[in-house]
Amino acid sequence: MASSSSLIFFLLLLLLLPCVSLAQSVGYGEQRRLRFLGKECQLDRLSGMQPRYRFESEAGVTEIFDEDDQQLQCASVSVIRRTLKPLGLFLPAFSNNPSLSFGFEHGRGQSERLGDEHQKILHFRQGDILAIPAGVAHWWYNSGDRPLVAISFSDTSSSVNQLDKTHRQFMLAGTYRKEGSRGSFGGGQQYSSSYHAFRSFDTRLLGEALGISQELAQEIQREDPRGEMVMVREGLKLVFPPSKEQLREEEEESYGGLRGSKRCEGEEETIKRSSNGVRVAFCTARLRENINDPRRADIFVPHAGWLKKLTSQKLPILGILKLSATRGVLHRQAITSPLWNVNAHCIVYVTRGRGRVQVVNDEGRAVHSGEIRQGQLLVVPQNFVMLIKAEDEGFEWVSFKTNDNAIESQIAGKASVLRGLPVDVVANAFRLRNEDAFKVKFGRADGVGIFPAHSSQEELGRPYAVV
Amino acid sequence: MASSSSLIFFLLLLLLLPCVSLAQSVGYGEQRRLRFLGKECQLDRLSGMQPRYRFESEAGVTEIFDEDDQQLQCASVSVIRRTLKPLGLFLPAFSNNPSLSFGFEHGRGQSERLGDEHQKILHFRQGDILAIPAGVAHWWYNSGDRPLVAISFSDTSSSVNQLDKTHRQFMLAGTYRKEGSRGSFGGGQQYSSSYHAFRSFDTRLLGEALGISQELAQEIQREDPRGEMVMVREGLKLVFPPSKEQLREEEEESYGGLRGSKRCEGEEETIKRSSNGVRVAFCTARLRENINDPRRADIFVPHAGWLKKLTSQKLPILGILKLSATRGVLHRQAITSPLWNVNAHCIVYVTRGRGRVQVVNDEGRAVHSGEIRQGQLLVVPQNFVMLIKAEDEGFEWVSFKTNDNAIESQIAGKASVLRGLPVDVVANAFRLRNEDAFKVKFGRADGVGIFPAHSSQEELGRPYAVV
Amino acid sequence: MASSSSLIFFLLLLLLLPCVSLAQSVGYGEQRRLRFLGKECQLDRLSGMQPRYRFESEAGVTEIFDEDDQQLQCASVSVIRRTLKPLGLFLPAFSNNPSLSFGFEHGRGQSERLGDEHQKILHFRQGDILAIPAGVAHWWYNSGDRPLVAISFSDTSSSVNQLDKTHRQFMLAGTYRKEGSRGSFGGGQQYSSSYHAFRSFDTRLLGEALGISQELAQEIQREDPRGEMVMVREGLKLVFPPSKEQLREEEEESYGGLRGSKRCEGEEETIKRSSNGVRVAFCTARLRENINDPRRADIFVPHAGWLKKLTSQKLPILGILKLSATRGVLHRQAITSPLWNVNAHCIVYVTRGRGRVQVVNDEGRAVHSGEIRQGQLLVVPQNFVMLIKAEDEGFEWVSFKTNDNAIESQIAGKASVLRGLPVDVVANAFRLRNEDAFKVKFGRADGVGIFPAHSSQEELGRPYAVV
Repeated sequence: MASSSSLIFFLLLLLLLPCVSLAQSVGYGEQRRLRFLGKECQLDRLSGMQPRYRFESEAGVTEIFDEDDQQLQCASVSVIRRTLKPLGLFLPAFSNNPSLSFGFEHGRGQSERLGDEHQKILHFRQGDILAIPAGVAHWWYNSGDRPLVAISFSDTSSSVNQLDKTHRQFMLAGTYRKEGSRGSFGGGQQYSSSYHAFRSFDTRLLGEALGISQELAQEIQREDPRGEMVMVREGLKLVFPPSKEQLREEEEESYGGLRGSKRCEGEEETIKRSSNGVRVAFCTARLRENINDPRRADIFVPHAGWLKKLTSQKLPILGILKLSATRGVLHRQAITSPLWNVNAHCIVYVTRGRGRVQVVNDEGRAVHSGEIRQGQLLVVPQNFVMLIKAEDEGFEWVSFKTNDNAIESQIAGKASVLRGLPVDVVANAFRLRNEDAFKVKFGRADGVGIFPAHSSQEELGRPYAVV
Repeated sequence: MASSSSLIFFLLLLLLLPCVSLAQSVGYGEQRRLRFLGKECQLDRLSGMQPRYRFESEAGVTEIFDEDDQQLQCASVSVIRRTLKPLGLFLPAFSNNPSLSFGFEHGRGQSERLGDEHQKILHFRQGDILAIPAGVAHWWYNSGDRPLVAISFSDTSSSVNQLDKTHRQFMLAGTYRKEGSRGSFGGGQQYSSSYHAFRSFDTRLLGEALGISQELAQEIQREDPRGEMVMVREGLKLVFPPSKEQLREEEEESYGGLRGSKRCEGEEETIKRSSNGVRVAFCTARLRENINDPRRADIFVPHAGWLKKLTSQKLPILGILKLSATRGVLHRQAITSPLWNVNAHCIVYVTRGRGRVQVVNDEGRAVHSGEIRQGQLLVVPQNFVMLIKAEDEGFEWVSFKTNDNAIESQIAGKASVLRGLPVDVVANAFRLRNEDAFKVKFGRADGVGIFPAHSSQEELGRPYAVV
Repeated sequence: MASSSSLIFFLLLLLLLPCVSLAQSVGYGEQRRLRFLGKECQLDRLSGMQPRYRFESEAGVTEIFDEDDQQLQCASVSVIRRTLKPLGLFLPAFSNNPSLSFGFEHGRGQSERLGDEHQKILHFRQGDILAIPAGVAHWWYNSGDRPLVAISFSDTSSSVNQLDKTHRQFMLAGTYRKEGSRGSFGGGQQYSSSYHAFRSFDTRLLGEALGISQELAQEIQREDPRGEMVMVREGLKLVFPPSKEQLREEEEESYGGLRGSKRCEGEEETIKRSSNGVRVAFCTARLRENINDPRRADIFVPHAGWLKKLTSQKLPILGILKLSATRGVLHRQAITSPLWNVNAHCIVYVTRGRGRVQVVNDEGRAVHSGEIRQGQLLVVPQNFVMLIKAEDEGFEWVSFKTNDNAIESQIAGKASVLRGLPVDVVANAFRLRNEDAFKVKFGRADGVGIFPAHSSQEELGRPYAVV
């Protein structure tokens, strides 16, 4: 089960809530965001960010991007990067915000498909996006032989979060370290430890509630210096019901991408216990999707790169989380069309390489014009016009977006803004001669979204009918 | 009609808006909340609250919980308790927030089923939850022979409320008294009277608009010292259309619990007037549901108590209000599982008895650890882990929740968090030997949600297969 | 095409986004508003407003109502009035908020039906409401021979707007002038120019991205003093695909009012280009509706006037924008019923005449009691009770409402609050004799919504059955 030669880790989602609840996105609670409120955001200067806080656990490292930073605060997002050692267990926890996580390993590009899947315990592979609803407890385990890195993005202004606009992590075991000055990050304090939920209950009450002895309750309440990730020296032992293998086969074949949305509307019972004649039903809403495969890209441009969008249409749970993601790869010196995000903020995290990114605000001023590189984060606000050009080592990124059906408006290329403008409007708008307006409109007539290096000149001047 | 030996009161909902409007939850306006905004909430200490303001009307008493209190302000809820004397009429009014009311009588537990029902005039019985949308005018009348108490909970951060986050009561007759320092409660002023809407219109214009003489308009505008509840000395005379009795029978039988959602999608005409050939259609969206009957509980545990949830699945109008409620009864010394509310705040009002309530925040610190008793209110924030143990007199409560499909995550018992964790994860999470992890996981294996007193020891150590 | 004798202007909506995206209102992003937050609004005095800022472009005038004004800020709306000269082109732009625009010409009342329609280029006629989603680029052109006036209303607290609660206009060409002290209106600065998006990009990168020469990129980036509306001296030349005329006919006939919602769910391809074998699909979600025709009014009362509501039921795109509008005409001395808006703010813009408007708040105090006249704007907050009486020249207005299914609760007339109250409740509420309560209840028994001048006395005292 735990293949020591492959890079995976497990996730358990404790979906012990009635399946129907989670399947009902409306009933679950619509996510609503209200950003830039309370204070007015002056996004005059954006910049590539790196994590500000860091703490070590027994089995890994937690790096937190500064939630007080203007960019993250204005966009109402919280970003954490975790590195989990092999045999490391991220302890059970939940948070007040929905989140998307992207798993990867620095310096490697291949994802490996693994065989095992179980309704409660998911394999989270490199290149997977993992969607976790607010308030749902989960744990992770790295069964591979290499450290795994996960960048996790939380939407603190999600309407499901009825607490304040910070990221709060509720531990069910272990300890979390908090720093900074904002919200739950402890006003004024530089460091504070967050203990797990059981620690402060009256020991007698806790024993009674859990049906255990006071001594055992006390043991649970002991101080734990191991942090939020602990080593499982001898490897985690998991016992599965006998029918697991077959069940998985059947699921994969019969339901594929629709399993989450179809099956979960009713209830799927996969673990059947005969004790007391009561059967426990688990929910298998699909929570992950791989976005690392160029062969399944939405846009693939030879010599330029590829883009893959993951929206609620492909992963229905995103309709509940109101978040989506895009994976992008630009080859050396390739460039994107100028574009804006119609209905979402876009948080770019660079997984490899370097690129030059320009962002222009509503006043037509560049609020970012520089390089961002591997490990850095950039917030591109809604409607701001942006453009990326890869440096020689290429540019690979994952974008998290604050809308489950985020829409981009491309300015150049097929199905773009310029293509929708009559030539005479272009001419009058920019005071150009008609032939120049024609060039502006059709300069990238053949391209879609991303363009290879130095190809622009060749494509100029081709004959097109005026639309 | 007005049975003097039974405890009822009437409610008229002036649903003169097109039925279709209310039936369309999306069109009506989605509720959206954004809590804890504007200022950051420090919920370091929760405590049982009692009403702070009180004013007397001719026919009853209005008691208002302090809207400025940290707990209520952070949760963005407003709570009012009213006691209406027999023959008392709560004058027509509406508010800027949706609300749920729970009717009860101190010291009595039996609800009585009454025969009469009319599409405009509902019987609101003891143990009923009554749902009132924002902006919809209504009145109540106590046709019984004992005072009736109603605790009303309003969601001031409902997105239907586009005014500020306070409770505003718009009277169509009578006077409302406001106190305190916040919002409409009159900055700085200690007391202020709110008059009904007709009072300040130009008398001539009002007469003209209503089609009455200026003298009569003037009479309507007179000062009224009776407050918001007035005595109807000789009893309220209501005249019903002849077919009412039959209509009711038919409705009850044919539509039952689905009447609100099914029939209202079209339009149900129950009062037909032939004047001018125009028929006035009234809407009968179901607005109430009784939650006081242990026989209809969701969870019933002998010697421990029972729980009944009222969500939008049972009462569809709650899908518009985005609120739900739970009725709970714990017998002497019974205890709940530790649990958290996944997607809602939970406002607990104790209707009888005393209980010890512990609440733990994201830092693992107890923000409440004490007794709350009959007549007190406690706000339990979303995701905070809580636990209730009844004292010897038992503990009965009603919880209002800020989500129409509020979900609880139980920690112990069947279908709980602990049951979902593999034994080896429990062992590694708490550094326990496997046999102790087994006890933690299965200590409450037989129970669901609430457990009887001192039963924990007996249930320990039973043989269970490891999952 | 460009009929010089008729008053029209064109709109191009660059709906180059996948149609399905816009058709999915939920996926597009639900609009959510939270008004009156951040600061508490003291709406003690409302008043008719006129535009505060004004700037001239080559082809017209832009007049901006003060976004910092208490009324507009509390209601979270932004209002701009534009006058576009004949042959004037409003340059391509988009904004961070959804908006409704109403087109009219001062002093004229007749709208003219024009023949041409194209899926990309809409005719925006006098009396049309035009709905524009946030982040969608568009341009307008006045092909008529008279100046056209458009009053545009934006919902700055729309949840689709994830930027701050101001109106931000992103130009794709030309220049926008901003004034005032709030948000993007440049803190402290009195005047600032907003340039178009292309201006600040690195010239080399821009050329490369658009596939044009650096010289041409430089030309696009030139400073442009013409503002946001420019003259097209020789008239705009638009070339249409051959099948346009027929296509339009077919659409008009076959789909009528349902075209937007039905056809757009799939995808409608109307411009088919064979280049590269790829077909570009355009979306024809219906974006406009005429509300100027008394024959299609919802309420038409001889000698009193008429009302027409435009909600998402009639124009489905409003369900995405979460906005609606009402057109109202009151003849000389006619009066409305007192009423309140149940679930929306109401922003009244007077297109002609004068009227006396009274507005009463939750304390029963008149917060507005005076005249408003042509060209003025009044914000009527949700739930506040209002009443309008036309002066001798009549009163014509358009109301924008912050809910796509805004509901009004009429107090007098058929299907009104008073009609829903039993006579005995009216009598006890206002301490009236039964015969007077009867008069109050039935004083406007025959009317609906608006009543002609001085007709009230005649209608008194008619015999009605008590309900």
